[in-house]
Amino acid sequence: MNQPGTFTLRATDGQARRASLVTAHGVIETPVFMPVGTVGSVKAVSPEDLKAVGAQIILGNTYHLYLRPGDELVARMGGLHRFARWDRPILTDSGGFQVFSLSGLRKITEQGVEFQSHLDGSRHFFSPEKVVSIQKNLGSDIMMVLDECVAWGQDRDYTAKSLELTTRWARRSREAYPRGSGGQIMFGIVQGGFHEDLREESLAQLSEIDFEGFAVGGLSVGESPEEMRRQLYHIGPKLPAHKPRYLMGVGAPMDILDGIMAGIDMFDCVLPTRNARNGTLYTSQGKVNIKRAEYREDERPLDSNCNCYTCRTFSRAYLRHLYVTRELLSYRLNTIHNLAFFLDLAAGARKAIEDGRFMAFRQQYADVYGEPGKQEMEAQQS
Amino acid sequence: MNQPGTFTLRATDGQARRASLVTAHGVIETPVFMPVGTVGSVKAVSPEDLKAVGAQIILGNTYHLYLRPGDELVARMGGLHRFARWDRPILTDSGGFQVFSLSGLRKITEQGVEFQSHLDGSRHFFSPEKVVSIQKNLGSDIMMVLDECVAWGQDRDYTAKSLELTTRWARRSREAYPRGSGGQIMFGIVQGGFHEDLREESLAQLSEIDFEGFAVGGLSVGESPEEMRRQLYHIGPKLPAHKPRYLMGVGAPMDILDGIMAGIDMFDCVLPTRNARNGTLYTSQGKVNIKRAEYREDERPLDSNCNCYTCRTFSRAYLRHLYVTRELLSYRLNTIHNLAFFLDLAAGARKAIEDGRFMAFRQQYADVYGEPGKQEMEAQQS
Ligand SMILES: [Zn+2]
Ligand SMILES: [Zn+2]
Repeated sequence: MNQPGTFTLRATDGQARRASLVTAHGVIETPVFMPVGTVGSVKAVSPEDLKAVGAQIILGNTYHLYLRPGDELVARMGGLHRFARWDRPILTDSGGFQVFSLSGLRKITEQGVEFQSHLDGSRHFFSPEKVVSIQKNLGSDIMMVLDECVAWGQDRDYTAKSLELTTRWARRSREAYPRGSGGQIMFGIVQGGFHEDLREESLAQLSEIDFEGFAVGGLSVGESPEEMRRQLYHIGPKLPAHKPRYLMGVGAPMDILDGIMAGIDMFDCVLPTRNARNGTLYTSQGKVNIKRAEYREDERPLDSNCNCYTCRTFSRAYLRHLYVTRELLSYRLNTIHNLAFFLDLAAGARKAIEDGRFMAFRQQYADVYGEPGKQEMEAQQS
Repeated sequence: MNQPGTFTLRATDGQARRASLVTAHGVIETPVFMPVGTVGSVKAVSPEDLKAVGAQIILGNTYHLYLRPGDELVARMGGLHRFARWDRPILTDSGGFQVFSLSGLRKITEQGVEFQSHLDGSRHFFSPEKVVSIQKNLGSDIMMVLDECVAWGQDRDYTAKSLELTTRWARRSREAYPRGSGGQIMFGIVQGGFHEDLREESLAQLSEIDFEGFAVGGLSVGESPEEMRRQLYHIGPKLPAHKPRYLMGVGAPMDILDGIMAGIDMFDCVLPTRNARNGTLYTSQGKVNIKRAEYREDERPLDSNCNCYTCRTFSRAYLRHLYVTRELLSYRLNTIHNLAFFLDLAAGARKAIEDGRFMAFRQQYADVYGEPGKQEMEAQQS
């Protein structure tokens, strides 16, 4: 079956799943990590760099691309794939998260959300239909529906009403792009805050709509690692088993592994790319802050277990020097490595699930990065 | 002859020369353009990027490398080639120009120059011997002697006294590193300001010292294009014919071509890399300011006559988008192209000299970039 949206389970290991998802630009092997390419460029790296570290799919931000360069311009340039010279799959988010986190004054109505651009304060309006239209212009392989991302600390009543609005918006989104009307597929987003029953209610409502996949939204918004996992372990395994499952904006290495353990297939996060630019690098021996004096004369590769261009080529001493002198090459080399680390983690998870040893694989990372909850959780969403 | 410093004239066309210079890290084919790698990294690009655009040799700044990461650290890391993973030739300047242009308070004595770091105001002292010692630690293929770079507008008396100091410093430099005492070669620097007789005097004095090559310093310091050329055309052809000739810190495309016309073999300048980061791109049709609105939907490559990665891969519209959104990839793609343009210019000049059509080759650029003096000259030195 080459129909976009075709999802084939290859193996399971507990709740963890090894699967394949067909898109118009190729098959994605899951579990998969998706680097974030905000405005149609994963910061500091090229399409070739992304392929060299094994990226199967990248994420584009609808909110950012709508503002610059504009989805209609992208459409005239032949779509985001052609514009950015990336011929593998692209997922575009709905812009909802950025509207709720980046933009100034915003007003939610039944019809949609009015917001101000974080760039120039200009006013804009996103309806579910508008967001579908933008994503059609971008030509992404996977579209996300507009949802309301409820802030951490919102009360139960607000959250319950909000998830119903999210459901109505989801229905309007699907109606604006019926299944099979083009090569793009569409995922619904489960909300419900930090109430298990509301999560179930959101899922029940969305399940009546014919989406090709389901995402869990509204996690990693400020809650503790334990609280995040409570929701994740509750709702993850309840998501439709025969469709792809996507945990949005998560996360640190252990968050991804625990997401996989809860049956999630797809992940995105700005952590590897943002931390790379801040000099925080993920290695098989733990996190490395490359600016530290201890690396001044360290001739070893950043991670001797990593086969990326950065680790194959340069010493820690040179990487530290580039970082300290703010050389532009530093951003690229660090980003290449951090992406390699996250993509290797996902590739390792795929293999481990196939071999029926996922929990042992997870434990290797837990030994280095610590059991979640025993460490502070990192900021994870963009 | 594989002895570093061996210089072989292959062809001439008027004063223009096509030659080869042997260094410890390989043969340089001249005329050659040398990208500037200030602290051991040509800003925004990797060693592989440099090789892909045909860079034969890069320049490192002694002043910057002495301050960060320190020449002794570089020596312990195996030298600058190994530290930066660049296995082709490197030329290091003497630091003189940066001391006179970047640093605060400075005091020149017979012994050397005391100066303050532009980074933290700390005090340092460069003697001719110290500068040789730093360049030995860096392990460059071509060392430059410490000189006093006389500012534009200095009077004749000062300039005359200064060139004699430069000569005494040059002699001490050579004594600190006698010819053949290692794999490095050393160039003297002709000063003399904007007085042809003082330029000749400086050259006469330096010619008594056994350098492997000669540079012309103190040009492109604020004078008019006509004044620069007056000195260049006067002194260029008088430099020893059987040794390499290097015009320091110059310049724009027409400056390089006119330097070649005056018999110069080697050039370096920050123009292509600095302008790349400012969005000013050199093309076969003239300069392009990539942020201009006219490129918003321009699907053409930046320069259809260029075969660099940037031009082979991306559209002007995407390059404009990356620049406008300040994406880090913009710096790399723009730098790759501008370096390709300057390196192609030098390669084209080599071929044109071999074919005895250098003046026609020069005219092609003059038709696009204008005859010098008819346009404002660009800031050229770093
Ligand atoms: Zn690596
Ligand atoms: Zn090009």
